[in-house]
Amino acid sequence: MSAASSYLNSPPAARIRIVLVGTQHPGNMGSAARAMKTMGLSRLVLVAPEKAPNLESYALAAGADDVLGEAATCQTLAEAVADCRLVLGCTARSRRVALEELLPRDAAARAVGEAAGGAEVALVFGRERTGLSNDELQLCHAAVHIPANPEYSSLNLAAAVQVLSYELRLALLEREAAGDEAAQGGERRDPPASHAQMEGFFAQLAETLDAIDFHKGRAPDSAMRKLRRLYLRAGLDEREVRILRGILADAQRMAMLAGEKRGSA
Amino acid sequence: MSAASSYLNSPPAARIRIVLVGTQHPGNMGSAARAMKTMGLSRLVLVAPEKAPNLESYALAAGADDVLGEAATCQTLAEAVADCRLVLGCTARSRRVALEELLPRDAAARAVGEAAGGAEVALVFGRERTGLSNDELQLCHAAVHIPANPEYSSLNLAAAVQVLSYELRLALLEREAAGDEAAQGGERRDPPASHAQMEGFFAQLAETLDAIDFHKGRAPDSAMRKLRRLYLRAGLDEREVRILRGILADAQRMAMLAGEKRGSA
Repeated sequence: MSAASSYLNSPPAARIRIVLVGTQHPGNMGSAARAMKTMGLSRLVLVAPEKAPNLESYALAAGADDVLGEAATCQTLAEAVADCRLVLGCTARSRRVALEELLPRDAAARAVGEAAGGAEVALVFGRERTGLSNDELQLCHAAVHIPANPEYSSLNLAAAVQVLSYELRLALLEREAAGDEAAQGGERRDPPASHAQMEGFFAQLAETLDAIDFHKGRAPDSAMRKLRRLYLRAGLDEREVRILRGILADAQRMAMLAGEKRGSA
Repeated sequence: MSAASSYLNSPPAARIRIVLVGTQHPGNMGSAARAMKTMGLSRLVLVAPEKAPNLESYALAAGADDVLGEAATCQTLAEAVADCRLVLGCTARSRRVALEELLPRDAAARAVGEAAGGAEVALVFGRERTGLSNDELQLCHAAVHIPANPEYSSLNLAAAVQVLSYELRLALLEREAAGDEAAQGGERRDPPASHAQMEGFFAQLAETLDAIDFHKGRAPDSAMRKLRRLYLRAGLDEREVRILRGILADAQRMAMLAGEKRGSA
């Protein structure tokens, strides 16, 4: 499949494809196409559907018949995602396959981030009854889990596509708003800080709190826990981490100078 | 309708009802029931549906037949929401009726907040083709707008119920997590910091950056603008502001001591 080539210069949404693997009910392909289009997505890939899209599919696609009509068809998932730098597999529950598990919101943020950086991205949905096989999950870089009611987690296929497409749209709109802001104010948000970068920052924060004698004999755990929560919630980007670490470095330097003074007093 | 009385001592989810007004296709009542149950909601109210739930409705409800079977039926929306303190009406587009318009996420936060406080809450969905009438919207305290593709905003009824139910579930889970944390660690999020508290914090932050010589001759505006954006985005509570100001005070103290040393050197 080389359908991607024509999308190289297009906006991020055009680099995100929805891949349906082994769909059993033709109607669901139509409903999924409709769910996608309501959220501004248009690239649908069908991997070995049990039946080709039929009249029922088109009836359920409603005004999204173009999305369904232009859907690519592949024989294997490997073929469908061959050119993708990020492949996210939607699973109803934790699996034996050891994959990082993302909530839809985090998955959408990552997908849109990659797509905005020029990468091809796939969100993969398995069969209605049995989901994705372990071999298929092995092709995914992470699993997406919709936090459904554990007593009844049976979202139908189109509903799962709707939820993920909705989160993708929010992430795309957010990015667009940030881009407009950047265009207006000359500021652009940097890539999100990685887990390792955040932990590096937290380690330096803990050292700094010691150095400036913030705890004053109290146990340091409670303050650090609150600070971790605050900064994780904020979703820092790389540059923000650099700025914060720069501030900490200067505070540490002041504490050292002050300590030398106290030591020499 | 007095179905609410038995829910008085129940968790917040039980005080949130989904109200479908004038549904035209019986299947959609079943799909909506399924969407609700996957997200842990169970109170469905049907206002004057064109046809009563039938075999197709139950087929589409799948394992959520209990939700559909226990649905209350009313003749008017006024009757369906008579005991509600918060009524949110889902609309596909802005209306002539002047109502505050909320995104699904904000609507869910407000709904769960009210329900957790003991109030009855309704999310109202109109007819497939024509939505809610102006008279019906007048009964709503705010409108909820799913930010769909403006060129094709035609979510089907069950898809709209799915998106809103998903956001309600996330808001309920978040509230639950906050409650568990409070129960376990005695930690509860404090009231959000006021505008004045944030500005007080930013003023002290600017002073501290000067004191620890963070800028080193560069213009201070860019760093402060990025820091403001970061901390405003994080949505600080009062206690977090106190902790951060405590850290700044200690860094300022260290800078003063260091300055005395430099001054005396």
